[in-house]
Amino acid sequence: MKQMLFLVPLIGLAGLLFAVFLRLYVIRQDPGNDKMREIADAIAEGARAFLTSEYRILVVFVAILFVVIGLGTRSWVTAGCFLVGSIFSTIAGYLGMSAAIRANCRTANAARTSGMRQALSLAFSGGSVMGMAVVGLGLMGVGALYIITKDVSVLSGFSLGASSIALFARVGGGIYTKAADVGADLVGKVEAGIPEDDPRNPAVIADNVGDNVGDVAGMGADLFESYVGSLISALTLGLVFYQESGILFPLLLSASGIVASIIGALLVKAIGNSDPHKALKTGEYSATALVVICALVLSRTFFGNYLAALTIITGLFVGVLIGFVTEIYTSGDYRFVKKVAAQSETGSATTIISGLAVGMQSTAVPILLVCIGILISNRLMGLYGIALAAVGMLSTTGITVAIDAYGPIADNAGGIAEMAGLDKSVREITDKLDSVGNTTAAIGKGFAIGSAALTALALFVSYAEAVKLTTIDILNAHVIIGLFIGGMLTFLFSAMTMESVSKAAHQMIEEVRRQFREDSGILKGTSRPDYASCVSISTNAALKEMFLPGLMAVLAPLATGLILGPDALGGLLTGALITGVLMAIFMSNSGGAWDNAKKYIEEGNHGGKGSTAHKAAVVGDTVGDPFKDTSGPSINILIKLMTIVSLVFAPMFLQYGGLL
Amino acid sequence: MKQMLFLVPLIGLAGLLFAVFLRLYVIRQDPGNDKMREIADAIAEGARAFLTSEYRILVVFVAILFVVIGLGTRSWVTAGCFLVGSIFSTIAGYLGMSAAIRANCRTANAARTSGMRQALSLAFSGGSVMGMAVVGLGLMGVGALYIITKDVSVLSGFSLGASSIALFARVGGGIYTKAADVGADLVGKVEAGIPEDDPRNPAVIADNVGDNVGDVAGMGADLFESYVGSLISALTLGLVFYQESGILFPLLLSASGIVASIIGALLVKAIGNSDPHKALKTGEYSATALVVICALVLSRTFFGNYLAALTIITGLFVGVLIGFVTEIYTSGDYRFVKKVAAQSETGSATTIISGLAVGMQSTAVPILLVCIGILISNRLMGLYGIALAAVGMLSTTGITVAIDAYGPIADNAGGIAEMAGLDKSVREITDKLDSVGNTTAAIGKGFAIGSAALTALALFVSYAEAVKLTTIDILNAHVIIGLFIGGMLTFLFSAMTMESVSKAAHQMIEEVRRQFREDSGILKGTSRPDYASCVSISTNAALKEMFLPGLMAVLAPLATGLILGPDALGGLLTGALITGVLMAIFMSNSGGAWDNAKKYIEEGNHGGKGSTAHKAAVVGDTVGDPFKDTSGPSINILIKLMTIVSLVFAPMFLQYGGLL
Repeated sequence: MKQMLFLVPLIGLAGLLFAVFLRLYVIRQDPGNDKMREIADAIAEGARAFLTSEYRILVVFVAILFVVIGLGTRSWVTAGCFLVGSIFSTIAGYLGMSAAIRANCRTANAARTSGMRQALSLAFSGGSVMGMAVVGLGLMGVGALYIITKDVSVLSGFSLGASSIALFARVGGGIYTKAADVGADLVGKVEAGIPEDDPRNPAVIADNVGDNVGDVAGMGADLFESYVGSLISALTLGLVFYQESGILFPLLLSASGIVASIIGALLVKAIGNSDPHKALKTGEYSATALVVICALVLSRTFFGNYLAALTIITGLFVGVLIGFVTEIYTSGDYRFVKKVAAQSETGSATTIISGLAVGMQSTAVPILLVCIGILISNRLMGLYGIALAAVGMLSTTGITVAIDAYGPIADNAGGIAEMAGLDKSVREITDKLDSVGNTTAAIGKGFAIGSAALTALALFVSYAEAVKLTTIDILNAHVIIGLFIGGMLTFLFSAMTMESVSKAAHQMIEEVRRQFREDSGILKGTSRPDYASCVSISTNAALKEMFLPGLMAVLAPLATGLILGPDALGGLLTGALITGVLMAIFMSNSGGAWDNAKKYIEEGNHGGKGSTAHKAAVVGDTVGDPFKDTSGPSINILIKLMTIVSLVFAPMFLQYGGLL
Repeated sequence: MKQMLFLVPLIGLAGLLFAVFLRLYVIRQDPGNDKMREIADAIAEGARAFLTSEYRILVVFVAILFVVIGLGTRSWVTAGCFLVGSIFSTIAGYLGMSAAIRANCRTANAARTSGMRQALSLAFSGGSVMGMAVVGLGLMGVGALYIITKDVSVLSGFSLGASSIALFARVGGGIYTKAADVGADLVGKVEAGIPEDDPRNPAVIADNVGDNVGDVAGMGADLFESYVGSLISALTLGLVFYQESGILFPLLLSASGIVASIIGALLVKAIGNSDPHKALKTGEYSATALVVICALVLSRTFFGNYLAALTIITGLFVGVLIGFVTEIYTSGDYRFVKKVAAQSETGSATTIISGLAVGMQSTAVPILLVCIGILISNRLMGLYGIALAAVGMLSTTGITVAIDAYGPIADNAGGIAEMAGLDKSVREITDKLDSVGNTTAAIGKGFAIGSAALTALALFVSYAEAVKLTTIDILNAHVIIGLFIGGMLTFLFSAMTMESVSKAAHQMIEEVRRQFREDSGILKGTSRPDYASCVSISTNAALKEMFLPGLMAVLAPLATGLILGPDALGGLLTGALITGVLMAIFMSNSGGAWDNAKKYIEEGNHGGKGSTAHKAAVVGDTVGDPFKDTSGPSINILIKLMTIVSLVFAPMFLQYGGLL
């Protein structure tokens, strides 16, 4: 049995090699004509410049935190694991993004020369690099470090590495992409009246870069940390309650998930035809079915019953159901988005009110689903069961991320087709791919939210184990204070990230206006706009603005643990978990509802494009941008990062915590 | 010592008599000319019609709940206390509002005939009826019922009566006032271009009625339940930790607060001159100083030290400081509102984003202040100390409510002056009174928020005592589920109340448009609009829409306690407390910031009235209306009501709770 442990990093490595192989496959394809290559190069250059600058800052941050961890926990092995975690997260982000920025023009070219099937295959391969890199590096890292150290407690360092990089990638990427998006839309589309992705818009390259750094690299880092965090909390609790079996089961289940994801990905490419939606769904469902079978076998092998498999299935189900609910609240096919669209007829105030109400209302069912998931998995296997449900939900991360990352690639391909002046039929294919991506992405979002809740909860339980708290008592005044502060931090964090987007977008608006004003040839199409200055505004703003929220996420739990003690810190983590999950669902779904209400009107309802209703809906969409793409998803990481910081520094709080 | 207990209901009675005396004083004044009387009568009629219909529904609700309490807790004494609580709350609301709807035209007339001093005296006397009725009836009820029953545990019934009426009054009143306000503004001011309070606007009477039922009756019921709730939690915990002294101290302190409020109110009237701001501040500060002195004497008498007095002072300080912070975030004199106003230059989307960000950010300092209050009062006297801090914060409720209720009276007086075509100098006086009211109201809001947090917390601790939970363990899966559900309920409740305002406003908009369309004489000023139909739209919508959120607040804790057990219910109350306080601060302050950003622009900044910035700011203000006047303040009651329901039904949960 124990030898099977060595399988774990090997299968992780296999996943990584599959990612590398797909990346080579993408690169070998024809990048298209000169014009397309020129645009793609500009996007690639901007994306690389951002990542390089971001990594340069993160090196300093990681170095400082490395020393703090070493000194604070007196375990340089933990600090070493932290280092490996941050490096692995960085590599995953880099690999995934470098494939995405190459897949975009090649997807456009495939749509031009070979049609839908080849375009789908390319876009999906590009996305799969991110997906497989995430799970491959994640499982390889956890597995190898466990084999080397034989110590579960130091692994939390690896998770902290993943979480720190994820927070900066999500916040930085989110600010980048929305500053560019809002800037490009408000001046280009609204003021100058030129269409989306028009090459005359100086912010258009920055906007496309944003899709890559925000929706690909940021999202990949997010799921890398969820994946790693859920695994490590399962190992921590598994060791306490079920010894060796408690460790082997989640590791081997995740390994089977990687194999299932590879098979699912190959299926997508094999059956890819005129119906990309069917291909993606088939791939995802096949992977899920394979994981379920493996879970049953592994559960029987390690525990002699099927309870562990049932927790895995519970996690998978809850994830899928949250995805469905998310779609119901945010897709134009259902009544909620239609209501927001209808309210746009009486102006932007009613659009905003109804969008906010839909977002708040949409928290109810996902929260109940999470509660049911907790109730069932806890009944089946106690607190360890909750961690397993999270592992189950994330077992198909390989293909979920692939489908998520495929969307922005198709979106970018459409942008390149537009800017390079390709035939309309090309744009039609990429639009089709993009719209399918939007639908399937809802399910991805469901997984991201559900897994964040369960993972943070499992990590929180691990923290309690680590500081030897068998109970965290709500009637203790310190815990109450912690609860209030934790809840408040998510509101403060949301305010900070929204303000950052506001500020950055403002700079972008000024710059685009300046260019239009100073060179009238730009709008006539006779002069080339200065794309680079817009790219550098987004880059600088994102890097500058991501710092404070990131610092807060690390310092708040440290300060609380030291000043008020481990009990208060337990309260803080709980407060942040509850309000964080709610705020994340609320903000993501309000944003999604506004976005699709606008699209619904653009399809010709309520007067269509240019109508009063459309103008009101554009206001809603603009408010929704930082909601759904910056603040909302960043909160998911905030709550996990604060928990993992507490877990890593638990030994320090035990010794010095509670000055007050 | 024990005989002093009989002083308590007597001083309560004295407060009530003072209210009745002030009401007579108001009624004896000259209501002005025929035109003024006609308008005032229309407002009074609408307000009475609403209250009567509301009470008719509440009678049924109260009767049902009376039986449920009797059967559920098997204590018909508790059920009886519930009945008395709901009747007292109703009387307080009726007394206060019937004075307010008489004081409005008399204030306008005083401004016309005698000037500022007499106008201030009348408006403040009208507000004081509400304030003194609230504290008089509250203390009399608690004191008398304790003397009669000698049983603290049945008193929670009285508190539940107060809370149930408060929720319906706040939600119903909030929906009423905002439906009328939004309807009057959007069609009258924006579409038809007629000024505020113009008699040609069919919704203008409904708007003025709304000020009375929402800002006077609703707010009074809100503070009645806070006042009663904090007292009863202090008695419950006082008995546990300090026996007789633990009961006498908060009762006598509140009695001293009534005396102090009466003296403060008399001071306001005595020194009322050309500077109403100074008069109100002097009254409030004098009352506070008197309470502090009494607290020191009583603390020394009952506990032999000054610790109890220090908790009272802590509560008072935290309340005042939260008020100051609220003003900084929501007044046009400070940078936050100025920032929102500046963002209005780039359109309504940026106005909304920055207003939301300001609201979220504004949670930080009040939450830290509440935490410091908890930390200090808990250090001084344990969990009982937290309840005392709430009692301290609310000890000057008499004068706080008077100042709060004085605002809408001055506002109404201005409306009547406008509609009756009085001289501009009259409107100038009422505007001055109104603007002073807005500033001092910020402090009232601080008290409402701070006291809701501390009262709910103290009631929660009392609940734990009642179900004999010495610890509520966050690591218990049922508690975690409760936490999630509790948090989610505040989001769902906010969504519901916002939707209700939306729906009701929509009906109002249609009706005003219909009247303008069908009778062109209305806008010309030759035909009289049909005020009554607008009044009845607001009335019906409010009564219909208040039902579901109210039912949810009662049923959710009952269902959770029965199905998941008292532990899960403890989690639910905690989750609702944390997210509820945050959402209430966020929504109230975002709304306040938008409101004052609009006013700041109207003062001539960023282009003044009619500019693009102003249009964007109006959108912000409209979104802010349900935020600050319906959802935000209602959440304060929701969290207290759910806690008190749990406290009352605790015996039932102990016996039958936890089916799952």
